Amino acid sequence: MRVSQISSASASDAKARKAASKSDAKVPAAPVPTLELSFDTVAPSGFGRIPVSGVSPVVENGAYPAKAVVGELIPIRATVFREGHDAVNASVILTDPAGHETRVDMTPMEPRGLDPWEAWVRPDSEGAWTFRVEGWSDPWGTWLHVAEAKLPAGVDIPLVCLEGRDLLERTATRADAAGDKVEASILRATAQLLIPERPAKDLLEVATGKGIGAAMRRYGPRELVSPSSDYPLFVDRRRALFSSWYEFFPRSQGATYDAKTDTWTSGTFDTCHERLEAAAAMGFDVIYFPPIHPIGEAFKKGKNNSLTPTKKDPGSPWAIGSPAGGHDAIHPDLGDWTSFDRLVARAKELGVEIALDFALQASPDHPWVTEHPEWFTTRLDGSIAYAENPPKKYQDIYPINFDNDAPGIYHEVLRILRLWMSHGVRIFRVDNPHTKPVQFWGWIMRQVRATDPDVLFLAEAFTTPAMMGALGKVGYHQSYTYFTWRNQKWELEEYMHDLAQTTDSFYRPNFFVNTPDINPFYLQSGNPAAFAIRAILAATLSPTWGVYSGFELFEHEPLRPGAEEYRNSEKYEFRPRDYNAAPNLNMLMGTLNSIRHAHPALQQLRQFTAHHASHDAVMAYSKRDGDDVILVICSLDPNATVESDVSLDMGALGLASGDGLHVRDELTGATFTWGQRNFVRLTPTNPAHILHVLNEG
Amino acid sequence: MRVSQISSASASDAKARKAASKSDAKVPAAPVPTLELSFDTVAPSGFGRIPVSGVSPVVENGAYPAKAVVGELIPIRATVFREGHDAVNASVILTDPAGHETRVDMTPMEPRGLDPWEAWVRPDSEGAWTFRVEGWSDPWGTWLHVAEAKLPAGVDIPLVCLEGRDLLERTATRADAAGDKVEASILRATAQLLIPERPAKDLLEVATGKGIGAAMRRYGPRELVSPSSDYPLFVDRRRALFSSWYEFFPRSQGATYDAKTDTWTSGTFDTCHERLEAAAAMGFDVIYFPPIHPIGEAFKKGKNNSLTPTKKDPGSPWAIGSPAGGHDAIHPDLGDWTSFDRLVARAKELGVEIALDFALQASPDHPWVTEHPEWFTTRLDGSIAYAENPPKKYQDIYPINFDNDAPGIYHEVLRILRLWMSHGVRIFRVDNPHTKPVQFWGWIMRQVRATDPDVLFLAEAFTTPAMMGALGKVGYHQSYTYFTWRNQKWELEEYMHDLAQTTDSFYRPNFFVNTPDINPFYLQSGNPAAFAIRAILAATLSPTWGVYSGFELFEHEPLRPGAEEYRNSEKYEFRPRDYNAAPNLNMLMGTLNSIRHAHPALQQLRQFTAHHASHDAVMAYSKRDGDDVILVICSLDPNATVESDVSLDMGALGLASGDGLHVRDELTGATFTWGQRNFVRLTPTNPAHILHVLNEG
Repeated sequence: MRVSQISSASASDAKARKAASKSDAKVPAAPVPTLELSFDTVAPSGFGRIPVSGVSPVVENGAYPAKAVVGELIPIRATVFREGHDAVNASVILTDPAGHETRVDMTPMEPRGLDPWEAWVRPDSEGAWTFRVEGWSDPWGTWLHVAEAKLPAGVDIPLVCLEGRDLLERTATRADAAGDKVEASILRATAQLLIPERPAKDLLEVATGKGIGAAMRRYGPRELVSPSSDYPLFVDRRRALFSSWYEFFPRSQGATYDAKTDTWTSGTFDTCHERLEAAAAMGFDVIYFPPIHPIGEAFKKGKNNSLTPTKKDPGSPWAIGSPAGGHDAIHPDLGDWTSFDRLVARAKELGVEIALDFALQASPDHPWVTEHPEWFTTRLDGSIAYAENPPKKYQDIYPINFDNDAPGIYHEVLRILRLWMSHGVRIFRVDNPHTKPVQFWGWIMRQVRATDPDVLFLAEAFTTPAMMGALGKVGYHQSYTYFTWRNQKWELEEYMHDLAQTTDSFYRPNFFVNTPDINPFYLQSGNPAAFAIRAILAATLSPTWGVYSGFELFEHEPLRPGAEEYRNSEKYEFRPRDYNAAPNLNMLMGTLNSIRHAHPALQQLRQFTAHHASHDAVMAYSKRDGDDVILVICSLDPNATVESDVSLDMGALGLASGDGLHVRDELTGATFTWGQRNFVRLTPTNPAHILHVLNEG
Repeated sequence: MRVSQISSASASDAKARKAASKSDAKVPAAPVPTLELSFDTVAPSGFGRIPVSGVSPVVENGAYPAKAVVGELIPIRATVFREGHDAVNASVILTDPAGHETRVDMTPMEPRGLDPWEAWVRPDSEGAWTFRVEGWSDPWGTWLHVAEAKLPAGVDIPLVCLEGRDLLERTATRADAAGDKVEASILRATAQLLIPERPAKDLLEVATGKGIGAAMRRYGPRELVSPSSDYPLFVDRRRALFSSWYEFFPRSQGATYDAKTDTWTSGTFDTCHERLEAAAAMGFDVIYFPPIHPIGEAFKKGKNNSLTPTKKDPGSPWAIGSPAGGHDAIHPDLGDWTSFDRLVARAKELGVEIALDFALQASPDHPWVTEHPEWFTTRLDGSIAYAENPPKKYQDIYPINFDNDAPGIYHEVLRILRLWMSHGVRIFRVDNPHTKPVQFWGWIMRQVRATDPDVLFLAEAFTTPAMMGALGKVGYHQSYTYFTWRNQKWELEEYMHDLAQTTDSFYRPNFFVNTPDINPFYLQSGNPAAFAIRAILAATLSPTWGVYSGFELFEHEPLRPGAEEYRNSEKYEFRPRDYNAAPNLNMLMGTLNSIRHAHPALQQLRQFTAHHASHDAVMAYSKRDGDDVILVICSLDPNATVESDVSLDMGALGLASGDGLHVRDELTGATFTWGQRNFVRLTPTNPAHILHVLNEG
């Protein structure tokens, strides 16, 4: 367990913080004393002797764990205060999955009058952690306050010295008990120096020495220790937070068209390897496939979602199920379990993972429809309800009913997930989870986490914040976001503030730049600069980003003007591509992923700071993890050169306001020196700087 | 139980709300169906089948009850949402102290996309209530949405009619079961009218009829009912929220000075009757006395807090305890238990209550000091610790130590409270509660509430919001506030927003205009207009206000320039006054109290709306309870005439934007007509309008 204590940010103490963040405090795992309240002075819950309230991160009052990954910086906060004038203090007690407790002292945040305390912690192993906050009475803090007021005023000097000696000697006894003979000797010697006859200045110098402060933090008395409840914090593997996704349709890779017979031959798992390798080479680490199951024939969709398919139309992969099988089967055109396993094995060799789409719905041809009609809704006329958005009908899709036979459908879903998990799939991208009960997902997530905590789920929900948040709370590891609809500086900054500081305990963003369902208006001009800008923003704002193939080739034609869907969508047809055709963004995407891997700052969610740029179409922001600081200056205008002043929050960069800023542009390799205020000029061909701050701490 | 449902405010539906607020919906106490989840699909806590979260008012996750008084309007809110496209709905289930459940349907609030729901309830009896929020699936709402989309489009008409008939007939069966044969017949007849061959318009008219809506709200199907936890709501007697306090020192009433002997004869309980009667005549209903216990001689304070008292100085009543007794004794100069009981009886006849100061501290002469030294802190030199604010010393006061012998001191405090309670004291004003453990107060409040729920406590804490809030949370019924330091319009509006909407579930303000400890800077000019303005603000902004005697005579001399204390403070000397000397504010205080009693709007905490006045020194605000609406326009400048435009938020007044405003000024009796925009002129002699809105709803 590495533990960092970082006080709240302010420019003036940036130097101090930078220094502090370098030496991760070693905290002894001393047994933590707790006040036994044998008298009925406490309610079953509620305030303890030292009130602690408003603890965070806490999700739905602890019903679900807050989120973390290994190595992530997590802020733990609480309101801690006490009666009267004696000193109050607070600590976090972290318990790792093995039951080992570690104490991390908290520091008061600004504004002090509101009694907030904070500690940043960095868990170092996967699994179910817990934490609590303990408020405690701090006799040494009280004594220091009294001594600083009374000694210079010449009041009660003998008594102040007597009480100081007593505290130092009692602390020495605790240091002895912990086997720390050196500290014990120092404490005892210091006690002897508190001689009332000495000048007040000398006495205070003795009492406030650095060594004594450290010894007191370690062994000093902690009284009236009042713990909060223990709250859960689940630490996932790192890829839950930090990953780069690349989506492609396996059937398109290596698909061939025979003009003579006017027929297509589908690509297969085996013809996918080349694309898999190319994506891995560009630094993507999660390769996501739309559904690979048999596709229904009933009401099959043709080109551009038409209701009149021809024999060469493969149908939508989301219309799952045919006589060849359902969610537990592979589309015969793609291959079989052997070729699937081969693909997964190749991915493993490349250090990347295959993520599968998990779309809980059925075509009318799905085996469930005849074997388990109770898993669907039967209407009063005896028909099975298909999907609708009245008056529109989606007759190729039967929604599942999760209430008719909850045990049946819940266990069937779990069986299917475990089947794919057993074939090496450890990441699922779930289609439309917000149309299934939140409670159902909570159950699924608990079952999977209990046996396979490394399995990750990405929620494809585009709906209200309450539902999107709830899916994260019940266990989704990542979520799609509103990023594709945030293009202006103010809305991007506002959204990043929400993600980094409001929903961070339960919602991990995955910034997809496009999807088969979303052809963003911003990209529909086809201007390559627009694509570059969105890739740079996604890859540097969010620790996880994603690309649907075709983006790098600037595909942009909308289904019709004003529509956010693609024309000739790959959802309804084969689309082999020449991925090396120029121009393309292959190089930029590779560079971005390489920068992301090199810089821990870009792998964190919370350490985002917006800086001031005078031009509305220039966005300036930094991310930070300890000494690693990345500053991004990005144009939001793909059509024009923009010039702007940029005024930096030096404290957020770990610098003081007078400091020079030595930077290397990670996109170009150029190094230069900046100050607090700078002039930038960004063009459609060079729309951004991604600056690594090189200053020594 | 009267229950009002009031949707969130907007000007456009003000008329509708005004109408709605008149007819308190009668809700049948039908048994509430709950979905039995026999399958392990739920976590021990967390989201139910229909997620309900963010329920309010909930204090420290239900460890302490939220506050209410009989007849108070309480908003109950929650975030309720569901998967997919079917209709969601929500209700509050209130359980009164007798265990009787009442259902109140909630309405969606703006912004709808964020899924907040709300119901306003008005409990009608004292005691321990609980409430929960139930989210539920609303099949009739789903059907209506489908019918409105499909019938005009001519889609699936027979099936839509079939499903509508089925819902109506099932609802008729429930109406039958409830013995409501009329509704059952109407529902069955309506079902027969859903004939597919009829025009869509006619079918929709049948389905959306007002009577059907009401019947469906009453008997319609509620599926997948998902309750939140039950949360406590304690309903106090009305005086906990609405009261007018008047403070005087009993010893000053009828005290006489003999110049010949240079001695004072103290006033007594018996010589207090006149002042008690005068305060009651002015409409005050709580008469609060500083401590009436024996006063210590050790380190007794003289005039103006000097350390050199003379024989004519009575000492501070907060230095409690002498050989004559402690907190359970009466100062011999004031009288005895018989004369105290006589005073309490007289108060009862007048319809007012005596509130006693409860100051948990001891003079060095207090019997506890010798009998229970363990209830104090003994220092290392063997001395008992006196109060300090280092390097300042308050040697006449020994603070209690609540940790040395918690059971002993806790029970002693309870014994003393019960002694005074047995003599008819049902309100205590607690001195400096923030210097005693919050947990201690929680215990005291629970003990007293268990046997004497009518006993009220006012917290005199001036400290951080966290501590002031915590005292309210653990059970204090009222609290002193920052009002005396809020003089500008922006800060008064901001503070009212906090009190009415942020801390309303646990913190009830008592707006004292002055206290023996606080001589506000705003009043130190002695300008009578300043006193009038502060009285008007306190009496109309807060349901509870308070006055320390002398205010009505414009007493204002500070101890020294820049000090907020009174010169020649009554805390340290006798101060008989001629309360009828002119000029005085007796008449205004009486008028204000009379207006407060006549208008329920001024007895509510939450229904505060600020209106726009163009002049910075003119404050415009309204308060409302159903049809009773009071609009206050008050100058904040005691020295000059101010003229201002006032632009009214008509919706907040229950009016539409074109309406005229018929008002009576309750200060002058004048009636006139206003519009949405008005011109006002306020002078130091007529600094305010208190307007009763006379419009018929």
